[in-house]
Amino acid sequence: MRGLTVCRYGDLPMYGHPTSSAPHLEGMAREGMLFTQFYSSSPVCSPSRAALLTGRYQVRSGVWPGVFWADSTGGLPLNETTIAEVLKTQGYDTAIIGKWHLGVGVNQTYLPTNHGFDYYYGVPYSHDMCPCPVCFWPKVPCGLNDNCDSQWTGCPVYENDRIVEQPADLLTLSSRYVKQASKFIQNSADKGNPFFLYMAFQHTHHPQFAGVEFTNTSARGKFGDALLELDWAVGEVLSTLQQATVQGNTLVFFTSDNGPSLRNEQRGGNAGLLKCGKGTTYEGGQRVPAIARWPGVIPPLSRTTELASTLDLFPTLAKLAGASVPSGVTLDGVDIMPILQNKHGSRDLFFYYPTSPDPKYGLYAVRYKQYKAHYYTQGQVNSNPNNHDPDCRPSAQRTRHDPPLLFNLNNDPSEQFNLGNMSEYQQLLKTIDSKKVEFEKTVVWGESQIAGHSSPDAEPCYNKGCSPFPQCCHTPQWWWP
Amino acid sequence: MRGLTVCRYGDLPMYGHPTSSAPHLEGMAREGMLFTQFYSSSPVCSPSRAALLTGRYQVRSGVWPGVFWADSTGGLPLNETTIAEVLKTQGYDTAIIGKWHLGVGVNQTYLPTNHGFDYYYGVPYSHDMCPCPVCFWPKVPCGLNDNCDSQWTGCPVYENDRIVEQPADLLTLSSRYVKQASKFIQNSADKGNPFFLYMAFQHTHHPQFAGVEFTNTSARGKFGDALLELDWAVGEVLSTLQQATVQGNTLVFFTSDNGPSLRNEQRGGNAGLLKCGKGTTYEGGQRVPAIARWPGVIPPLSRTTELASTLDLFPTLAKLAGASVPSGVTLDGVDIMPILQNKHGSRDLFFYYPTSPDPKYGLYAVRYKQYKAHYYTQGQVNSNPNNHDPDCRPSAQRTRHDPPLLFNLNNDPSEQFNLGNMSEYQQLLKTIDSKKVEFEKTVVWGESQIAGHSSPDAEPCYNKGCSPFPQCCHTPQWWWP
Repeated sequence: MRGLTVCRYGDLPMYGHPTSSAPHLEGMAREGMLFTQFYSSSPVCSPSRAALLTGRYQVRSGVWPGVFWADSTGGLPLNETTIAEVLKTQGYDTAIIGKWHLGVGVNQTYLPTNHGFDYYYGVPYSHDMCPCPVCFWPKVPCGLNDNCDSQWTGCPVYENDRIVEQPADLLTLSSRYVKQASKFIQNSADKGNPFFLYMAFQHTHHPQFAGVEFTNTSARGKFGDALLELDWAVGEVLSTLQQATVQGNTLVFFTSDNGPSLRNEQRGGNAGLLKCGKGTTYEGGQRVPAIARWPGVIPPLSRTTELASTLDLFPTLAKLAGASVPSGVTLDGVDIMPILQNKHGSRDLFFYYPTSPDPKYGLYAVRYKQYKAHYYTQGQVNSNPNNHDPDCRPSAQRTRHDPPLLFNLNNDPSEQFNLGNMSEYQQLLKTIDSKKVEFEKTVVWGESQIAGHSSPDAEPCYNKGCSPFPQCCHTPQWWWP
Repeated sequence: MRGLTVCRYGDLPMYGHPTSSAPHLEGMAREGMLFTQFYSSSPVCSPSRAALLTGRYQVRSGVWPGVFWADSTGGLPLNETTIAEVLKTQGYDTAIIGKWHLGVGVNQTYLPTNHGFDYYYGVPYSHDMCPCPVCFWPKVPCGLNDNCDSQWTGCPVYENDRIVEQPADLLTLSSRYVKQASKFIQNSADKGNPFFLYMAFQHTHHPQFAGVEFTNTSARGKFGDALLELDWAVGEVLSTLQQATVQGNTLVFFTSDNGPSLRNEQRGGNAGLLKCGKGTTYEGGQRVPAIARWPGVIPPLSRTTELASTLDLFPTLAKLAGASVPSGVTLDGVDIMPILQNKHGSRDLFFYYPTSPDPKYGLYAVRYKQYKAHYYTQGQVNSNPNNHDPDCRPSAQRTRHDPPLLFNLNNDPSEQFNLGNMSEYQQLLKTIDSKKVEFEKTVVWGESQIAGHSSPDAEPCYNKGCSPFPQCCHTPQWWWP
């Protein structure tokens, strides 16, 4: 069982945000383990989720460059093996509740039910990717940084491969996610089946929303309200596990898919002490919160500085379930069970690809033990065109560094003090170079499933053929207020 | 009982530092309350400590501009009333162990024993304020950013008003601080006396040091080693309280005197998500960690976003002890016991004076509820001349803002998004203006005890008259290795 959200490194109280409140996540961390050096495989959403579900870097599966959109005709290729598919071989019930963001396609080709999930309920991408006049009725148009309140987004809610609601009612969406999650857990527990639940919240992505019981209840405004609802939902899921008396044999893992979208300013999230945010290969783009809880297995009050990544969940869960991993497929993850039992992990390398990777440039950065070498750096729009740090802005174009910029992240987590020019680090840089070359030799770039793959035909619409498309899309029971 | 250290906002694991380790402080926070909006009265050391001990802004007591040096002839004026003096009226035993930094003077005039403390043991200022050739033997000269290891600093260790060691042996200093603290606590407990212990560590000020059992034991290098020794010392004091069976009626308060000295780079500490550091009136300069523990009174696992300050400790402790506060003296603190019992506090204002305040300019910034208005901003050398944020650098000279820069710190703790130009905030700015005027009317600036008050005669030296002074100063039992 695991959950994914878009809550960033600096956004949770345990990671230093002064006014965030998340009592259930704090409790989960006390009962289990908090990671402080945990990485998503990409600084943006779709590739990060592809890697999480397949245990493979996004460039292998073709989920690059950037992300899927509502009109994307592509998706995670069907020949990729997901965690859900592997666990199904061991008799697991499998479900995803929430944000999929790995493609829909013209004939719902890429929905989760074609990727090993028995059940799907949710909005298939970010809730800000739908037509604006519907999204923020009656306020039009809605810019990126608007703070308009929204109840509906033009996005569809799917149940399996069927649209059951369009526009989506955001005020009730999270509580429905919780209801479906609880039903799924209880049902599997009743049958005595093992289960895998991938709970991918829309929270706390901009524009933030929250149910009425959470609106205006936090110290941190709309972001804080959304976080409180997310936190409540985590609490509900944990409490369902307890009621279903399966918490002793359930691993719950909480993490995020990328860094904060700083261009959304007060509502963009916070990278804490890390440099830059979403879209960049600085730490703020890819280091994410992570909490693991498994009573009786993970010692309470654990805190680890071991390196780990969303890439590691695939092999870890496969091994726990006694499943074989697909043969002939290169995996990029390692088993993190030793870390969860307070032993050393086996990962001493992590590789950073940018938002829009390109075989011509390859890796942007390599982490080796406590060191990180940047071969290329580049700002990105999601890190805010007016960021106070010029390195984060999109105007900071791709820059090659030779020798690479080198940081000791244990002493300098904010990537401020370059060691790359110092003679005593040249041998280390050579070692990192050779690790980089060795890794890149293993990388066969999958054909891009995103670039040039879009068509209005692919955009999910309950009543296809309506006009003006896609603003007109809606399910029969829907009404404008 | 309380302790003061120089561990900064972003330096503790509970405030988001990924590789810091501080298990005893983490435990203390779990057993009690963690503050996330707690302020020191100044972005540098001496004025901050003056305000803490007197409950009054430093400009009233004359502890401005900047800090005391080894050759300062001034100190905290003797007519100021300290917490120790107030508690003595109620029969408290009083002691300070560690860094005093409120002046020594030509005839030890300003040492703690003349300010209400029964006992003093420690180095009377920062351990980097002493002659360099002695300080970092045999490596000379030592620059600010050097990372040389040191066992001795030319600074004296005082016991009461007598130098008992010079140079100070840093490798054993912390364990001697712990020993003296434990002796004091046990002694008071044996006599059944109430006691006030002000434990002011040299840690984690640059250049960091640690006893042999902590050297090379942390993930965070020398800073992490120093923090581990500090944390161990806190654990020892807590354990003494338990052994003396006084922990149920002892308030332990842990905090810091200012933000990180970013110019010391990897070893300067970290402000976490806060802007700039030591020496500035941005949040990184003055918002500090704070933990309160009092079993049976403060509910465990408490976390508060209430505004509070080192200024508040004086009235809080006085009230707890049933002591009267000095009459005819303006106090700037409020009782924080309601906060410690998870109720709302009464502070909705906090005033920021710069490192070197000047009656001509007055306050630099005002916090009112969740808002902070900057009337002046200024970078400072301690925030690093090469800071990636140009606002923090000393080249950012004093700048008047009209209208003031305005930040909503609840939503924007990193002070990134100015609201001061927006029409909807003009009324709020007027309110803040009037609070500022009202406060400044109450401020009678004390005559500066620092500017122009220095003489070699004041520099503590065991063997005065030796040559070359002051490098030659040493106690008889001392030898060069």
